[in-house]
Amino acid sequence: MFNFKYQNPTKIIFGKGCIESIRKEIPPGSKVLITYGGGSIKKNGVFDEVKAALEGYEVLEFGGIEPNPTYETLMKCVELVRATKADYLLAVGGGSVIDGTKFIAAAVYYEGEPWEILEKFGAGIARAVPFGTVLTLPATGSEMNNGAVITRKSLKAKLPFASPFVFPKFSVLDPTKTYTLPPRQIGNGIVDTFVHIMEQYLTFPVNAKVQDRFAEGLLMTLIEEGPKALQTPEDYDVRSNLMWCATLGLNGLISVGVPQDWATHMVGHEITALYGLDHGQTLAVVFPPMLKVRKEEKREKLLQYAERVWGLKDGDEETRIDQAIEKTRELFESVHVKTRLCEYGINDDCIPLVVEQLEKHGMIKLGERRDVTPDKVRNILELCL
Amino acid sequence: MFNFKYQNPTKIIFGKGCIESIRKEIPPGSKVLITYGGGSIKKNGVFDEVKAALEGYEVLEFGGIEPNPTYETLMKCVELVRATKADYLLAVGGGSVIDGTKFIAAAVYYEGEPWEILEKFGAGIARAVPFGTVLTLPATGSEMNNGAVITRKSLKAKLPFASPFVFPKFSVLDPTKTYTLPPRQIGNGIVDTFVHIMEQYLTFPVNAKVQDRFAEGLLMTLIEEGPKALQTPEDYDVRSNLMWCATLGLNGLISVGVPQDWATHMVGHEITALYGLDHGQTLAVVFPPMLKVRKEEKREKLLQYAERVWGLKDGDEETRIDQAIEKTRELFESVHVKTRLCEYGINDDCIPLVVEQLEKHGMIKLGERRDVTPDKVRNILELCL
Repeated sequence: MFNFKYQNPTKIIFGKGCIESIRKEIPPGSKVLITYGGGSIKKNGVFDEVKAALEGYEVLEFGGIEPNPTYETLMKCVELVRATKADYLLAVGGGSVIDGTKFIAAAVYYEGEPWEILEKFGAGIARAVPFGTVLTLPATGSEMNNGAVITRKSLKAKLPFASPFVFPKFSVLDPTKTYTLPPRQIGNGIVDTFVHIMEQYLTFPVNAKVQDRFAEGLLMTLIEEGPKALQTPEDYDVRSNLMWCATLGLNGLISVGVPQDWATHMVGHEITALYGLDHGQTLAVVFPPMLKVRKEEKREKLLQYAERVWGLKDGDEETRIDQAIEKTRELFESVHVKTRLCEYGINDDCIPLVVEQLEKHGMIKLGERRDVTPDKVRNILELCL
Repeated sequence: MFNFKYQNPTKIIFGKGCIESIRKEIPPGSKVLITYGGGSIKKNGVFDEVKAALEGYEVLEFGGIEPNPTYETLMKCVELVRATKADYLLAVGGGSVIDGTKFIAAAVYYEGEPWEILEKFGAGIARAVPFGTVLTLPATGSEMNNGAVITRKSLKAKLPFASPFVFPKFSVLDPTKTYTLPPRQIGNGIVDTFVHIMEQYLTFPVNAKVQDRFAEGLLMTLIEEGPKALQTPEDYDVRSNLMWCATLGLNGLISVGVPQDWATHMVGHEITALYGLDHGQTLAVVFPPMLKVRKEEKREKLLQYAERVWGLKDGDEETRIDQAIEKTRELFESVHVKTRLCEYGINDDCIPLVVEQLEKHGMIKLGERRDVTPDKVRNILELCL
């Protein structure tokens, strides 16, 4: 196990009916700016519930944060916060709204051009507006971590940043608020969570037994509960387990002391930036080929994954590995996320474009061994078609 | 799954050579009081390493905090902190030193007689002296939680308290610092960790799949690594896995949203208070009979435990449950912790005394269903002889 530091101060408030408790978390007298996305929270009652919980506070709002939140949109909110002197942000939505709010929180006080936050992976952040979240879509884990991914349309760039200043102060996770989500978002969320966990787990062994067992426990839970979430959308237990999985899949816990991959995410981000695919869709496409092409480097963990997560103990090593990769693809398909680029109308023209974008963003040595070169990405993308 | 709140702000600094980093964690200019136990840290070099890391700080020390730390001893340190105006505490040791330091931290500012902290389970605490820890004995999880257990000799009482004000600011976990521990302490630590996890896991099912998988992952890791820790004391990976298990076994994570038992701990505390047995020894004695007597109430989770943790899938339910309980006892014996009261020179005279003490402390309805009455405790203790 590698040496590590771990700290995660976010307070989780979990369960049905919990939204009302946000007023205990936000300092009295705060000027609260609610951030949200396309407006579904205004249709499903969540916005009204939040407003009711904030009775007595001065409340502003900023809607329209899009999936893959853009710098262009977020900077409008930064101006609004600066102009109104709002001193507490409340993100109500999924990972995009929360990611966007992290950027806003950091950019408000940023000295210089806030795009630098992305260019420097968050290094220049010295403070941020405090914020909480009300999660409506389990997927990204953003509600309990200090990272975010922001897109700049004009540059066709989608880049991540992280900073200890952008942990949410609190996050409300009410599984009943996910009942009305469209199946496509649930499916994407399951794929996203699954691949998050795999990026931290499926690398090379360092004898970190607890981290491995935790990751495997999350994966097995997703396999058991994922398809049920689509079949019986109002099963509270299923939605609870999925929601808690998504949070724990990327709150920093399972990655302590172990190598991490993230090549699938980096390739996926470029596909989203170029073609507008959902984040979960890009992962479903790229991840199985990523494992195939890197089978040798990942052999030991692939065998462990095959046995412990999928119960594959028979046949030779090659067969077990291939079966495990195939079962991973089948899982994605089972929650209705397509796993081939052609199914999204993308052909092999994409290969040089994606590679070029990766190179432009300096991503020429990806993966836990820094050996996923542009050539290897080409091989992987060929298997994605 | 039940509704829950979870927050754990303690920063973990894990790995070999990490002690030097404490100076980054303690505010410059602090007057630091180092608390410790019987003095082993002065023999094995840990104290010197800590002192070197604190160069430039004003440093005081208070040694002699005993296993099962006593109110009588700790109050002397409270007076010392008040007299010297030390403003940062650094606990260097195992669970007893850390528990004791939590009490000191809270008692310094407590208005009224500090024993009330125990009588009120921490409810009256309004602030505490900030403190960090350097862990030398993996067992109690105290390094990453906000609870402690304190003994008052004159009352033969051993009582717990908790407060959000007594989370350590940071904890340094260097597995190499556990190499020189006596086997007895390693064995006790493994039993303590195992039973902590079981108190949160082995109750009744609420369909909390992640919490179950995490608990099972920790238990399996203890089963794999525990005996090795005694066989090869300087195996870094083994000690790392044990140390991280002990921390995660009681940092609040696996207990979110699920029922909790703790009857074994409450009975065990009384045995320690009356007879001076090590904490781990009392758990090794009480826990297997606790499961036997409460087999019906715990049937579903016992079957899950038997299958997932011990791989017991054959035979009828009764057999699998009995085997799982027996294997639990064998695990404790395998790390050289005796599991019968007679092996500690205690006979059936203890039964009325333990029950009387429990009644005196109001502990007449223990367990996750509050159905462990004094009568049931008598049955359990008879099986402990």
